[in-house]
Amino acid sequence: MSPLAPAKFPDLPEIAGVEFASAAAGVKYAGRTDVMLARIAPGASIAGVFTTSSTRAACVLDCQEKLAMRAPDDAGAAIIVNSGNANAFTGKRGQESVDKVTGAVAEALDMPISRVFSSSTGVIGEPLPHDKIVAVIDSLTQRLSPAGIEDAARAIMTTDTYPKGAFAEIQGEGGKIKIAGIAKGSGMIAPNMATMLVYIFTDAKITPARLQKMLSRQVDDTFNAITVDSDTSTSDALIVAATGKSDAAEIADLRSEPAKAFEAGLRGVMMDLAHQVVKDGEGATKFVEIRVTRARSNEDAHKIAMSIANSPLVKTAIAGEDANWGRVVAAVGKSGAEADRDKLKISFGDMVVAEKGWRVPDYSEEAASAYMKNDELVIGVDLGLGRASKSVWTCDLTHRYIDINADYRS
Amino acid sequence: MSPLAPAKFPDLPEIAGVEFASAAAGVKYAGRTDVMLARIAPGASIAGVFTTSSTRAACVLDCQEKLAMRAPDDAGAAIIVNSGNANAFTGKRGQESVDKVTGAVAEALDMPISRVFSSSTGVIGEPLPHDKIVAVIDSLTQRLSPAGIEDAARAIMTTDTYPKGAFAEIQGEGGKIKIAGIAKGSGMIAPNMATMLVYIFTDAKITPARLQKMLSRQVDDTFNAITVDSDTSTSDALIVAATGKSDAAEIADLRSEPAKAFEAGLRGVMMDLAHQVVKDGEGATKFVEIRVTRARSNEDAHKIAMSIANSPLVKTAIAGEDANWGRVVAAVGKSGAEADRDKLKISFGDMVVAEKGWRVPDYSEEAASAYMKNDELVIGVDLGLGRASKSVWTCDLTHRYIDINADYRS
Repeated sequence: MSPLAPAKFPDLPEIAGVEFASAAAGVKYAGRTDVMLARIAPGASIAGVFTTSSTRAACVLDCQEKLAMRAPDDAGAAIIVNSGNANAFTGKRGQESVDKVTGAVAEALDMPISRVFSSSTGVIGEPLPHDKIVAVIDSLTQRLSPAGIEDAARAIMTTDTYPKGAFAEIQGEGGKIKIAGIAKGSGMIAPNMATMLVYIFTDAKITPARLQKMLSRQVDDTFNAITVDSDTSTSDALIVAATGKSDAAEIADLRSEPAKAFEAGLRGVMMDLAHQVVKDGEGATKFVEIRVTRARSNEDAHKIAMSIANSPLVKTAIAGEDANWGRVVAAVGKSGAEADRDKLKISFGDMVVAEKGWRVPDYSEEAASAYMKNDELVIGVDLGLGRASKSVWTCDLTHRYIDINADYRS
Repeated sequence: MSPLAPAKFPDLPEIAGVEFASAAAGVKYAGRTDVMLARIAPGASIAGVFTTSSTRAACVLDCQEKLAMRAPDDAGAAIIVNSGNANAFTGKRGQESVDKVTGAVAEALDMPISRVFSSSTGVIGEPLPHDKIVAVIDSLTQRLSPAGIEDAARAIMTTDTYPKGAFAEIQGEGGKIKIAGIAKGSGMIAPNMATMLVYIFTDAKITPARLQKMLSRQVDDTFNAITVDSDTSTSDALIVAATGKSDAAEIADLRSEPAKAFEAGLRGVMMDLAHQVVKDGEGATKFVEIRVTRARSNEDAHKIAMSIANSPLVKTAIAGEDANWGRVVAAVGKSGAEADRDKLKISFGDMVVAEKGWRVPDYSEEAASAYMKNDELVIGVDLGLGRASKSVWTCDLTHRYIDINADYRS
């Protein structure tokens, strides 16, 4: 279990119009669940963002195609996810597997196949044993329950050491709106316009277009602002379903107060899940915010923050509790973004360690070293050039990362 | 000692017009040499390439300034290098240190300060104890010898486990031309238009402009094509000195056969040293060529090759001797370069493991695993899109890398 794991899985609220079931299909793992099914009631809005990898998995391509289609008015929807096998780089056979699995769900739940979204996560390049998944679908549909979300969060885990969940409750116009989300992710984490597997459910009334707009504009500061190892997955998928079952009025004007409250709630759930993914980063012992301020542009702030967050030298220094701010300087320098050595200010927590091109006169190695012993760290880089800022979150690079990933075909 | 180290340091030829001396100044390390001085006879041509880091060290900025100046006709030149302290991010004091050290050398050797080039390598952000270096300069100048190049290679080492040298002898027009080079580098290796510390000496007759042109066009395929950990140094410097003492005629036409032979010899020495740097990569147990072919453009080929070479997941799989070609596919996908999943062909050595969007029908896990046990590996990626190709070289990511870098302020 990651030392950064939350004390317990949160008590997620049930979302009217969403039911879950999980099963152990034996895709790869023994003695645990590895398939989850979510059924979403007719009339729901679905939105999604996905990996931009040019070698993305068959299920990702399939989801993108289906989301681009206009949904029948009275159609429900379903999400089926397996862990243990990513069905990525599996050629024509990959799409066949997606068709078999989503086809079986569509038949069992009596809905068009275009409304069944699937994800697969695990080893790349192995054929997906889709028959094993198809074999448990009848059992799954018989056990669907609004309370099954925690079990669903467990079924989608791969190298994760804990299931990840988050929720928000917002006051809408005339009623409460609930949001509940689950995620998996631990390695191959450097989302690019998407993330690991994330599923968020809400009872809000909102059109797919408005939901997609909110999702897309919140993803850059949440899931696209985390990195464990700079490796972008072939399978990243984030799907949001809004059932419209809340008593609150439809969110029709994105500039209205209720819309802003809902978007803030959605962002909060996304950020919470994103941070949980980093805290479960393979081998992580430290959770680190890289906070870049006063950059010339947003692009520069992002480049510098990610250059630091992905630097193996910075990440190993953090693992060793070494206040090695020189490596932070080097990572700023290599980023390709505009930086002026003599305007740079570096801080660890509230402690400024370097400014004006050199370490501060009253620099205290003891104080800096003491700070590095914290589980949660903030490394600040003030560029002194402009007004753009950006935070990204990462973890340290430890021996456990290598143990986990040098293992045969983990 | 790296398991990939060469059996012995090569017998480098003496280069007429170049002398070396080394000393133990106690900059940081005890019980070893840490300063080297090279004196180059009057009339030599000097060329150099340096890190593009925006936080580059004072000595790098100083070298760049001096190389941009027109050299007096009869001036000799000198190179003074210390290990143990990078004199990087040391503010105004950094340039003062450079001035003190190069000034002392200029005085001792009776040459203009503008012809004394310095490098520093080691910890970032600590004031350089330049007095310790100045104190050994008289002793160094008294012990200059054409045979001192191997000791010089040892004096510039930091976390290197072996000194690095390479040479070539070329038939010029009317005489032989010799080239001898030394390098240091082991971590923070992802050169960008330059490299670690590299010094190459030749007795060729060639103008500074022609020498710089050859150097600049060979650096992309040699030092800019290696990576240990994706971290670019603040101190990368590659300096070439041509003394003109060979009997061979001046290299005046870069399209002539002797010029081509000299450039090929220079490239060979650069490539040899670059590979030695990777083989001494911190914690390395495998030397890996990533060979990308049939990309749409040179930029795409380079992006894809570096994306694979810098992927922690690929590098840990290699450390674990796992033929995990799925991670190679993922690294191609995240690179941002054009790739078509269904045209991609991946091979390990001569063995094609995946093509047409999936692993080959006769894929043998045993054969692939057996191949991964080699010390030197070639991972081939044929994109099937165009005519551009690029090789880059890297090493695996092992526990030793973390041991070395999580150590307090290594």
